[in-house]
Amino acid sequence: MKLVRYGAPGQEKPGMIDSQGQLRDLSGHVADITGRAFEAGLMDTLRGIDPATLPRVDNSPRIGPCVGDVRTFWAIGLNYTDHAEETGAPIPKEPILFNKAASCIVGPYDDVILPPGSVEADWEVELALLIGKRSYRISEAEAADAIAGYFICNDVSEREYQLKREGLWTKGKCCPTFGPIGPWLVTPDEFKNPQDKGLWLDLNGTRTQTGHTSKMIFTIAHIVSYVSQFLILEAGDIITTGTPPGVGLGMAPNVFLKAGDEMHLGIDGLGAQRQTVVAFPG
Amino acid sequence: MKLVRYGAPGQEKPGMIDSQGQLRDLSGHVADITGRAFEAGLMDTLRGIDPATLPRVDNSPRIGPCVGDVRTFWAIGLNYTDHAEETGAPIPKEPILFNKAASCIVGPYDDVILPPGSVEADWEVELALLIGKRSYRISEAEAADAIAGYFICNDVSEREYQLKREGLWTKGKCCPTFGPIGPWLVTPDEFKNPQDKGLWLDLNGTRTQTGHTSKMIFTIAHIVSYVSQFLILEAGDIITTGTPPGVGLGMAPNVFLKAGDEMHLGIDGLGAQRQTVVAFPG
Repeated sequence: MKLVRYGAPGQEKPGMIDSQGQLRDLSGHVADITGRAFEAGLMDTLRGIDPATLPRVDNSPRIGPCVGDVRTFWAIGLNYTDHAEETGAPIPKEPILFNKAASCIVGPYDDVILPPGSVEADWEVELALLIGKRSYRISEAEAADAIAGYFICNDVSEREYQLKREGLWTKGKCCPTFGPIGPWLVTPDEFKNPQDKGLWLDLNGTRTQTGHTSKMIFTIAHIVSYVSQFLILEAGDIITTGTPPGVGLGMAPNVFLKAGDEMHLGIDGLGAQRQTVVAFPG
Repeated sequence: MKLVRYGAPGQEKPGMIDSQGQLRDLSGHVADITGRAFEAGLMDTLRGIDPATLPRVDNSPRIGPCVGDVRTFWAIGLNYTDHAEETGAPIPKEPILFNKAASCIVGPYDDVILPPGSVEADWEVELALLIGKRSYRISEAEAADAIAGYFICNDVSEREYQLKREGLWTKGKCCPTFGPIGPWLVTPDEFKNPQDKGLWLDLNGTRTQTGHTSKMIFTIAHIVSYVSQFLILEAGDIITTGTPPGVGLGMAPNVFLKAGDEMHLGIDGLGAQRQTVVAFPG
């Protein structure tokens, strides 16, 4: 099942993409697509609906972030061996955990805004997931039950803010628009094996990232279980799980985003995103 | 004004402490004490209420976290010169920003649970604040308008998880019960100057932390303005602003928390917390 949220920013309605690729409105059946809605039984509601009975949405509305009411936005760093190598970082022995701000989330086709003074903004195509069930100290076998769905995340990062402004990575990871997610939240029954997916990113039409989730250092099941050993994952938390090689920081010389650049990125089974990079207004 | 949330975990009701120190119920007037409620005009509602007309709550209920529906839990590291020195860290040139998990929040008198295998759990009395207004790139002068209130936070930290388990500080900062907040959310009109407050923590009856917010490297106004340069602060975000000297990591030899320990901590004008440390169950 492919779930979407469509409409103006902050006023998105829930929808689904039917087997013909048609957007249909779900707002007569569910309030929003959120982790808490999954925890309260959203899948049961959805399974009882014949998509053909849902109103068609034909006016090509804006597609918003595929998850509403995100609680904590978790992220895993350096989770592909070849990406760790390109950034000069050692291969981590355990997953590296950090945070993005929920307030950086935007839709998959929204503009990415360069923050003021940005000179090292970079791209990162990543497989992300939604937690649909409060989880603490769960096993890898139990992780599948905690995952409500999968989606693309562009973990946009300002490297100067991230690495040269004191302390941790946070400052470069949380800028407004630095978290495009979607277009679809794909449920696990449809997405199937998360370790068998290609992912890619084109910058201005040139392939820059090519990766495969079989090359993850830590699998999705391991990540969810591992993080849950340290903290309670809540329904509504999302986790983005690291990027394959090909980011601007890994190029010699470095290449960073500038106004007018176009990012186009996708993952097998999850569709594609496209963002235009724009200067900070004013 | 001193606002509280009381009742069983997850079912807290809003209340206030009147000028006689009496707990009174606010649930006839407001749904909850949250950043979004402040953004929607909670202060105007509260100003229109005569506390003497509110029902008294006389059965000494549990006091819960003083803020509900916390969005992102931000934290500032090494914000007192003498604490930076005791941990052997250099004095930061800019505020160090990291995250705690909203899921670690508990009430001010709830038990603190040692996570499995914990050998380096530590205490940190801190002045924390609630953001009551969506804020991006605000000045220090504008910061006061963004703050809905102040409260005590014990930024409990597992140093081994924080410093020796790969990567960033997150793993040691987010364990369940590692974020006692409250007892009260004190509004800025009552709290007045946040840079003129003493703060302290006793471990098993012995004073271990003694500090004063006049010794902060970065003031509250600077922190709020600074963080808002990087990211959108949302109504409902909280920020805990760093600890003064006297943590266990700074002692020679180190002293860390063990089951049965009692922490008692307070800040001028914000009351006091008291937690018992307990072993991980089972």
